[in-house]
Amino acid sequence: MYNIKPKEIKPKEIRRMIREGKLDGKGIGSAGLGLGYVICNLVVLSKDIALDFMIFCQRNPQPCYIHEVTDIGNPEPRFSAPGADLRTDITKYCIYEKGKLKEEVTDITEYWRDDFIAFLIAGSDTWEKVLLAANIPLRHREEGKKAAIYISSIQCEPSNLFRGPMAVSMRSIPENKIPRTIQICSRFPTAHGIPIHIGSPEKIGIKNINKPDFGDPVEIKSGEIPVFWACGVTAQSVAMISKPKIMITHAPAQPFITDIRDEELAII
Amino acid sequence: MYNIKPKEIKPKEIRRMIREGKLDGKGIGSAGLGLGYVICNLVVLSKDIALDFMIFCQRNPQPCYIHEVTDIGNPEPRFSAPGADLRTDITKYCIYEKGKLKEEVTDITEYWRDDFIAFLIAGSDTWEKVLLAANIPLRHREEGKKAAIYISSIQCEPSNLFRGPMAVSMRSIPENKIPRTIQICSRFPTAHGIPIHIGSPEKIGIKNINKPDFGDPVEIKSGEIPVFWACGVTAQSVAMISKPKIMITHAPAQPFITDIRDEELAII
Repeated sequence: MYNIKPKEIKPKEIRRMIREGKLDGKGIGSAGLGLGYVICNLVVLSKDIALDFMIFCQRNPQPCYIHEVTDIGNPEPRFSAPGADLRTDITKYCIYEKGKLKEEVTDITEYWRDDFIAFLIAGSDTWEKVLLAANIPLRHREEGKKAAIYISSIQCEPSNLFRGPMAVSMRSIPENKIPRTIQICSRFPTAHGIPIHIGSPEKIGIKNINKPDFGDPVEIKSGEIPVFWACGVTAQSVAMISKPKIMITHAPAQPFITDIRDEELAII
Repeated sequence: MYNIKPKEIKPKEIRRMIREGKLDGKGIGSAGLGLGYVICNLVVLSKDIALDFMIFCQRNPQPCYIHEVTDIGNPEPRFSAPGADLRTDITKYCIYEKGKLKEEVTDITEYWRDDFIAFLIAGSDTWEKVLLAANIPLRHREEGKKAAIYISSIQCEPSNLFRGPMAVSMRSIPENKIPRTIQICSRFPTAHGIPIHIGSPEKIGIKNINKPDFGDPVEIKSGEIPVFWACGVTAQSVAMISKPKIMITHAPAQPFITDIRDEELAII
């Protein structure tokens, strides 16, 4: 069963329910709630390292295209979700100190500081709906799983302290559907765009395709090829490597839901 | 006569000739030298205001898409022109103090500081060659003129001190060629992409189409429509309004020539 039926609950209403503690992270994004709207990864950093991080993202737009940067100290993403509050409108947050997970919380209001800047970074799901509509099967969706994500051996272009390998997501695509898959993803350059690698996992440092670093393993059946896309998880993993004094992110698979419709990102 | 013949002189060689003082600004970019390669506007700012400026560009990607940000203090644009030196490889620079032009120089080596960051911002000419190849006439090229550029009444999204109106370039396009023009420009979202306005100049605050703020006036003949694109000059004009203590830019119509071929920017 594909989750491509448009849900009736608007992002603003979903965010309100999250803010009021009426929703946990299950069912956010690809699993259903907010489907059809751009979902973003969150990275919150202090101002003193924000420029280095932003330059990192500029140099690595395939994994880390920035959809929005908030004004310094202001938790409202006024372009992608006017009225939202990034301190409360995500189901779960991770707080890292010097690169180590300190705690997970459902509200970061008490942690928020005047020198914090929030970055909303492209999530992976925007074009999945379009692939499904074009009759390109996505097994993780068929099986109700999360996409498999791996830390590859592809090195990102560094920016000062921010450096490290690229996270990639994998989808197993029927061989004869690969050209059409690439054509569709080309329309979404700000949401990871075209694949970063097609074929042999070992060529990008993935030793065991059945053991993803995040998400669920997905079977690659006969006649299918593993296709890899740059993944927004890169931003967090690289920030973690850089060991900033404090960093706050969304918890895995519990991203922020914007008001932007997927199709608004399409370049043609 | 269209200048669409590929020139034999490679960007690296052009930059060397500029560095050695063997070329003035005439003939750079749309006029001939470096045609077929991405040309960029230059903005150099000190680190303390670079984050605000970068956020401005992120919020206004149509006029101000950033192609490269140099490492702090390093004048080499190592991604778009490895080995180049942004202090010497442009024919003429403008040095602004608190928003006022202080002087024009052909070399900024003695002005360069360890806290400077250089931004290379999308220039306007990338898809003109493709339009010409598709038999869409561009009168300013036919007449050997510069594109007409106006300061419009469209307000950019501000970022702290960086705020102000958008500069736009105008091309007079035969009415029946406009859909194809838009289709072609859609392929280049990182080089201003699709037009920002089609038709009435007065609707975007242009009082006299015959008096551009920069460049040359271009006649709009019967059966043609003025088409406006966001223009990279915006970055400089907005930076000027913000009155930074020091800012260095390329001189008008004397941009930086990268090693990137125009077609490399095409998204499809």
